[in-house]
Parts: sequence; C-alpha cells; structure tokens
Amino acid sequence: MSRYQQLAARLKEQIQLGYFAPASRLPSVRQLASEHGVSLSTVQEAYRVLERDQLIVARPKSGYFVAEERKAISRPEQSKPPQRPMDVSLWEDVLAMLLGHGVDAVCEFQHAMPDMASSTLKPLLKSLYELNRHRPQDGMKYGHIQGDAGLREQLSRLTASAGCHLMAEDFVVTSGCQEALSVCLRAVAEPGEIVAVESPGFYGAMQAIKAANLKALEIPTDSRDGMSIDALRLAMDQWPVKAILVTPTVNNPQGYVMPLEKKQALYQLAQEFDIAIIEDDIYGDIAFDYPRPKTLKSFDDDGRVLLCSSFSKTLAPGFRVGWIAPGRYRDKVTHIKYVSSSMCPTLPQLAIGRFIREGGYERHLSAMRQHYRKARDLMLEDIRRFFPEQTRVSYPEGGFVLWMELPKKYDAVKLAERAKQAGIILAPGQMFSATGKYRHCLRFNFIDRNHASREAALRTLSELLPECQLSPS
Amino acid sequence: MSRYQQLAARLKEQIQLGYFAPASRLPSVRQLASEHGVSLSTVQEAYRVLERDQLIVARPKSGYFVAEERKAISRPEQSKPPQRPMDVSLWEDVLAMLLGHGVDAVCEFQHAMPDMASSTLKPLLKSLYELNRHRPQDGMKYGHIQGDAGLREQLSRLTASAGCHLMAEDFVVTSGCQEALSVCLRAVAEPGEIVAVESPGFYGAMQAIKAANLKALEIPTDSRDGMSIDALRLAMDQWPVKAILVTPTVNNPQGYVMPLEKKQALYQLAQEFDIAIIEDDIYGDIAFDYPRPKTLKSFDDDGRVLLCSSFSKTLAPGFRVGWIAPGRYRDKVTHIKYVSSSMCPTLPQLAIGRFIREGGYERHLSAMRQHYRKARDLMLEDIRRFFPEQTRVSYPEGGFVLWMELPKKYDAVKLAERAKQAGIILAPGQMFSATGKYRHCLRFNFIDRNHASREAALRTLSELLPECQLSPS
Ligand SMILES: Cc1ncc(COP(=O)(O)O)c(C=O)c1O
Ligand SMILES: Cc1ncc(COP(=O)(O)O)c(C=O)c1O
Repeated sequence: MSRYQQLAARLKEQIQLGYFAPASRLPSVRQLASEHGVSLSTVQEAYRVLERDQLIVARPKSGYFVAEERKAISRPEQSKPPQRPMDVSLWEDVLAMLLGHGVDAVCEFQHAMPDMASSTLKPLLKSLYELNRHRPQDGMKYGHIQGDAGLREQLSRLTASAGCHLMAEDFVVTSGCQEALSVCLRAVAEPGEIVAVESPGFYGAMQAIKAANLKALEIPTDSRDGMSIDALRLAMDQWPVKAILVTPTVNNPQGYVMPLEKKQALYQLAQEFDIAIIEDDIYGDIAFDYPRPKTLKSFDDDGRVLLCSSFSKTLAPGFRVGWIAPGRYRDKVTHIKYVSSSMCPTLPQLAIGRFIREGGYERHLSAMRQHYRKARDLMLEDIRRFFPEQTRVSYPEGGFVLWMELPKKYDAVKLAERAKQAGIILAPGQMFSATGKYRHCLRFNFIDRNHASREAALRTLSELLPECQLSPS
Repeated sequence: MSRYQQLAARLKEQIQLGYFAPASRLPSVRQLASEHGVSLSTVQEAYRVLERDQLIVARPKSGYFVAEERKAISRPEQSKPPQRPMDVSLWEDVLAMLLGHGVDAVCEFQHAMPDMASSTLKPLLKSLYELNRHRPQDGMKYGHIQGDAGLREQLSRLTASAGCHLMAEDFVVTSGCQEALSVCLRAVAEPGEIVAVESPGFYGAMQAIKAANLKALEIPTDSRDGMSIDALRLAMDQWPVKAILVTPTVNNPQGYVMPLEKKQALYQLAQEFDIAIIEDDIYGDIAFDYPRPKTLKSFDDDGRVLLCSSFSKTLAPGFRVGWIAPGRYRDKVTHIKYVSSSMCPTLPQLAIGRFIREGGYERHLSAMRQHYRKARDLMLEDIRRFFPEQTRVSYPEGGFVLWMELPKKYDAVKLAERAKQAGIILAPGQMFSATGKYRHCLRFNFIDRNHASREAALRTLSELLPECQLSPS
C-alpha cells in the first residue's frame, strides 16, 4: 500500500469509528500533512479516495466535510468475465443503439456526447466558419497524410500535460478515436491473435476487434481502479496475448481513473511480456482532477504504447478529429491509416489547432469539468433516492457517463424496451462485453437534457423496474 | 463484332484508303445512319471509337473531320502481369509520393486532383460556410451511421443516370472512396484470399489489399477497353478468386471506358463463379460522353456488385465524402464502416446534397467535361511533339489523368528523380502494380497549372530522358 492509500485507510477508519462526526469539517490539507509528516499531494490523493467512496465531500473554498449519514451507494465489484479469448458478438445490439436516436425522447441516457451548447465553444465555431468563408481552398485539397502540422504541434503541447514527450511528427491525425483504435489494432495484431480488454469496455473497441478478425480476452476489472493487474498477468501467462487495449483515465463506461502506480505496473507487465498497449485516452482531458492524470504513454520509453484520442468528448464528436501517437508502430500505422480513409478534412483541424493555441480549449475544459462534476453528484443522489438499495453505481472521476449494476434479478434489456415506450433511451450493458454479459447493467449519460428531465426519467425507470425481472427460463 | 464496331472498321478502312482526305469533313451522324441503315447512336459510337484512335476529330457545332496527317501516337498494348496471386509491395514509393507535395514545383503531374478553382463550385462553398455559420450544431453531433438521408436521396438520383436502381437506404456514406474500397475489400474477402485487379491499377486499392492481408492477382488489361475477360476467366479457372476490383468507367490510370457489352460479360463471369465485384466509379461522372456510361452495377440483379465512389474527382477530395452501394453486403459493410471511422462529418454532406439538388453539380460537371477534354487533346499533342516516337499513351475518355509507356530502355523512377530537381513532380508507374512492374511508365495529370507550364515541363522532361536509361545491371 502506498502512502496515500495508508492515510486514506486510516481516515476511513476514524470516520467509521465516529472520530469525525457526520457533516463535520475535516482538517485542512496543510494541517493533516504536517500532522502525518506527509506531502500535501499525499493528503490530496487520500482525500480524493475518500471523496470517490463518498465518505467525504469537498465544498469549494470551505474544505472537506464528512458526508451526511445516508443510505450508501455501493460500487460494482470486480467483474468476472470468462477467462478465455472469445469472438466478439453483439453487433446487432450496437447497431440498434446507434440507429435508436430518440427524436421524440424525453431523456436520452444512451449517448456519449458532451455538452455542445456551451458558450465556451463559440470561438471555435467562429473560426471554423471564417475558415470556410475565407480559405475554402484549404479545405478542398488532399492534405498531409499525418494531418495538419499546426494541429500536431498543439497535440504535442496538450499531451505534455499528460506526461508525454512527443513532437509534432509523432502524431497521425485520424477520423475520430474510432479510426485510431481500429488502425492501431490492425497495426499491432494479425488476424486470429488475442487482445486483452477491460470488462466492461467500450463497444466500439470490441467491434473493431471483431472486424479485425481478432479475439477479445476480457480481464476482470474493478469499478474503482480498472483492470486487475494480477488477473492480467495470469491471463498473459496462459494465453499468447498480443496487445492490451485499455481506457485507464476516465474509463468508458465506468469513469474510474487508474492510479498512477497501477498504470506503471501495467506498463511494466507489457514490457515484461514485450507486447503493445493501445491506450484510449479519449476522456483523459476531462478528468475532474486538474492538472489531469498522467497517461500510460508517459512511462513509454520504448515506444510500445499507441496513444489514441480525439476531440469527440472534449469538444464535439461531429468534427471527427482524433489522433494516434503510435510510438514505434508509426510506419505501419501510417500505412493502415492511409488505406483506411486517406487524409482527414483540413478545416476542422485548422480551427481546433487555433482554438487550443489561443487558450479556448483550456477555458472550455475548465467550464465542462465543473458542469459535469455537479451533474454527476446530482445523478448519484437521484439514483440513491429512486433505485433499489442493492443497486451499485460506479463513481466517475471525469467525463459524463457512469455504470449501473442492478440487482441480478433485473433485465436491463427489458427495461430499455419498456423505457423506450416512455421516451427514455437507455444503453443496456451487454454491448460492453464481447459476449453479452452485463444484462443487468446500464451505462448512463448524466448530462442529457436538464436535471429535472433526468430526475423525472430516473423516477419513471424505477417504477418500470419491478416489471423487468429476468424470465425464469 | 457489334454493329458500331463494324461501322467503325469500315470507316477506318475508308479513311486509310483515302476515300476521305485528311482534314476533310465527314458525313453527319444523321446522313451516315440513313446510308448504313443503323441507329444514330450506332454512328455516334463508331465515331467515338475513331475519335479515340485519333483518326478523326470532333469540332463542336461543325461536325466530324478526318485528322490531319501526322505522326500517330500509339496506345499501350495489353499488359502482361505475372499470372499468380502476389503480396502487394511498393508502399514506400506510394508514401514518398504522398509526402512529395511540390511546394516550389513548376508543374505537378503526379497528383489526381480536379480543377477546384472553377466558379461553378461557388454555390457549394457558399452553402458550406452558411451551414457552418447558421447550423453549426448540426455539424457537432454524431450523425446517422449510413450518412445524411438527404444526401443519400441525391445519390439515388445520381446513380440512376448511371443505370442503377437504388434507394436512399441502399447507400453507406464513407470518408472518401478510399474508405469505401477498404471497407468493401474487408467485407467480401477474408485474410489470405485473392482479389483480381486491373494492371496497371490504382495504388490506393492495391495498398488496401495489402492492409487487409489479401493477395492481388493482376489481370492483363488493355489500354482501350480494360481488363481482359478471357484472361480473367483463365485466372479464375486456376485460382480461387474471391472478388474482382475494377475501375471500368474512366479508369485510373489509363482513362478508358470499358464498353457496355464487355461490362455485361464481366458481370456474367462474376455471376458464373458466384463472386463479388467491387466497382470503383470515382471518375464515372466525368466521362466525356454525356449521358454518362452505365455502371457494372446497372446489371446487378442479385446484389453482388459493391459500387464505390466519392466526390473527390468531381468536386474536391478535401471534403472526404464518398459512398458505397453495397448490395447484399450491406450489413457487413455497415459494421466495418462503423468500426473503421464511425460516422462522417455532416455539414459537407448537407452542402453537397443541396448542391446536387439545386442543379449545381450537373452544371459544374458539364463545365469540367469541356475543360478536361480540351486539356487532354493539348496534352496528347504536346506528348506527340516532344516524346520519342515509340512512346505510347492511353486515350482518356474522361477525367484528367493519362498513362504513358516510355520505350522499355527508359527508367521512369530515374526520370522522376531528375525531374524533381527541375521542379517537376512525377508519378512513376511501379506504384500502379502490386509488384513493381511498369518502371518505364508514368501517370500524368493533364490539368495542373496552365497549358504553358505543362508544355514547358514536358519539353524539359523530354530533354532529361536521354540521361534516364535503365542501368544495364
Ligand atoms: C472510450 C471511447 N473510445 C473511442 C470512442 C470513439 O470516439 P470517436 O467518436 O472520436 O471516434 C468513444 C466514443 O464513444 C469512446 O467512448
Ligand atoms: C480510382 C480511385 N479510387 C479511389 C480513390 C480514392 O478516392 P478518395 O480521395 O475519395 O478517397 C482514388 C483517388 O485517387 C482513385 O483514383
């Protein structure tokens, strides 16, 4: 156990023993650091853990307080997927969800789109429009196959804040993070080979594994800190795993941030077995912690990490601007990216590059962080109010989605069908597995519409729940 | 021999025998039709053949004339590629060409970009910036996975003029034709399987075959009418060919249009062997004949043709808007397109859809047809003037590229290196083969810069040629 974990455990014990009363103020970070002879950041880390576990709450400008006494929401336990490589199925479910836009919906919990109405996006839209007006020719030619050099310079700055040392020429711009993942999978593994993934994990990555004729090996994953390193090692001892595909910083669907030491351990394991890591960092820049958590790529001294991301969760998915920092796989990645869709449209790249350079991106992120964090707390509170006590919910440390585990007797697919009739669109859990596990789970977007709509929708769902038990078959 | 071929042969004989003097006027289409008791379109077809063979020239509004006496340019003979499936190589050459933008070039013969400065494109650019200005939100969301429905309706109209009966739901929009080809290859063939291709053929398709772990079987191809059906049948008898990938209407690099009966024979062969056809129609809408030639897809009564195209050659490649009409492969194609790059940016789709609907597309094409045709004739004339007599050149029936075969003793790769120092960028032929054939060939764009620049550049090339003989090694 590291320093901050020890401190967190001690404080937790003290809270549970009643040393600190419910709703009372906790010592300041500075005070606690000097009491325990540890650094300020150790105390901050420890408080972060307690906050995640909802034992304490942070009140801006006033400090940390013990949570009020209440029915607690538990986190999902570590998952137990089948311990062997599997073909990915479930495409029909994914397609149905992709097509199931809720035109007349009252609430759409299924999608993973950020807030795009914020005024902090205005400078970006303005420069996009101006480029289209005054430099249309720049948008008409075939551009550079690795993407616009100006944008890649900004990517090099951005990723520095995630602990990376990358130059403009180390990036390949892609049509979103989806293309990034697909290209990387095909660059590191041959048909028939095995890729280790989180479970639950992002369905788009699972489907890319299927399309590349690879097999998915789902690794037990904890809703607090991600893929189990022990389970991963066991799996790698047993199977010839070719690559690990992970979303360690603000995971989709669970929202956890894998702690830094665990990231390091994961990297070392990949090194030991000499395999590649595809790191999906698409939500990394909207972790609620600021400065943002470091990437796995930050440890990468031999180029085995292929960092993938896009602006789909930080700005807007419709721009379709993503990227890869492919490390030692650059040549292969460039080839596969070229055949996959040739170059990417130039004007969105120019506009986004300028937006970052002029500080708009940071300002937007800072507004979104606050907004999403608040929405998360409201959502967790609503779920606690409306849902059965045994419901488990992940605690997102960034982004705008969370993962709910209903008591096992419920069928989330049935619930999604009923809910749809009431105008509420859901993403049931089975798509987040290669093989249809998690039928009692759901991923929720917690920023769709407004809080009143979400609250009403959650209440409706809780009323539908009793009719949605698994058939005894 | 069909009617028009008989008529063409007869007229050719008469010209060669001197019945019609050089530069003299030929009978009108109507006159000849009644003389020979054939239809107007048969005469038109026959005149088209003679025009292609440069025995006659068409003068708008005055009719057809016998060509002036001159040194003729011959067409390349049918190609003789290796008659077995091969792994595709040559990526390094393709990459070098993609990166070799001639910033300070005096003439760029290597690229395949259309004229994008034409005023007929203005309404499209206007609606693009207006959409960016007034409906930016439409460009930010994830859109429909098959693409914008309004654009797909227009595609259904467009392809009707190429003989297809397709509904909006029969299309999947892609990031250019490159993505279309890649997706289709992966949808119809499994790793290790064989795809028959034209030789020479488009390098992007060859590289997509490589990336999908497929093998290319190059089929002997004639510079006048495309892939040899006999050679294809022989190859299919011998090898388990899984699909045929062809660009039959305005081929890249040669520019021929495969005659309709030959298209039908190709389709019937695919039917007989029960395999798929991937039809690349990217240049089809700028065939010089109007109405445009029919597609292979127009024969497709059992859904085995996957029609691929984009607006990259008709409007501008930077928009990255392409499409697939995948026939019976729609489900698989939709899956692979989704994992490949998710949906495509919406605003360019909206703008292009509107441009077609409002007639701008047709107007633009009609201007480009005239422009390119004139440029072709100038280019052929310049080549005749400057290049050695044994040089062979294809006769493009649309588009803006042609294929040159130098006498075998010359090395086009060496020529490209020398030319680059003189600011002239070339596309040597070996990239258009899976295995590096055609080192004495080149593809030329004939609309870059203006005629004076092209003329000067061609003269320079002819002067460099003597130094560029193949080493005796
Ligand atoms: C974890 C993760 N990776 C990748 C993607 C695909 O992103 P993009 O829209 O940029 O292709 C998503 C989108 O939902 C995602 O959640
Ligand atoms: C025959 C052919 N097919 C496909 C493509 C790729 O087109 P796009 O730029 O639309 O991806 C090209 C582009 O050069 C081409 O010439």
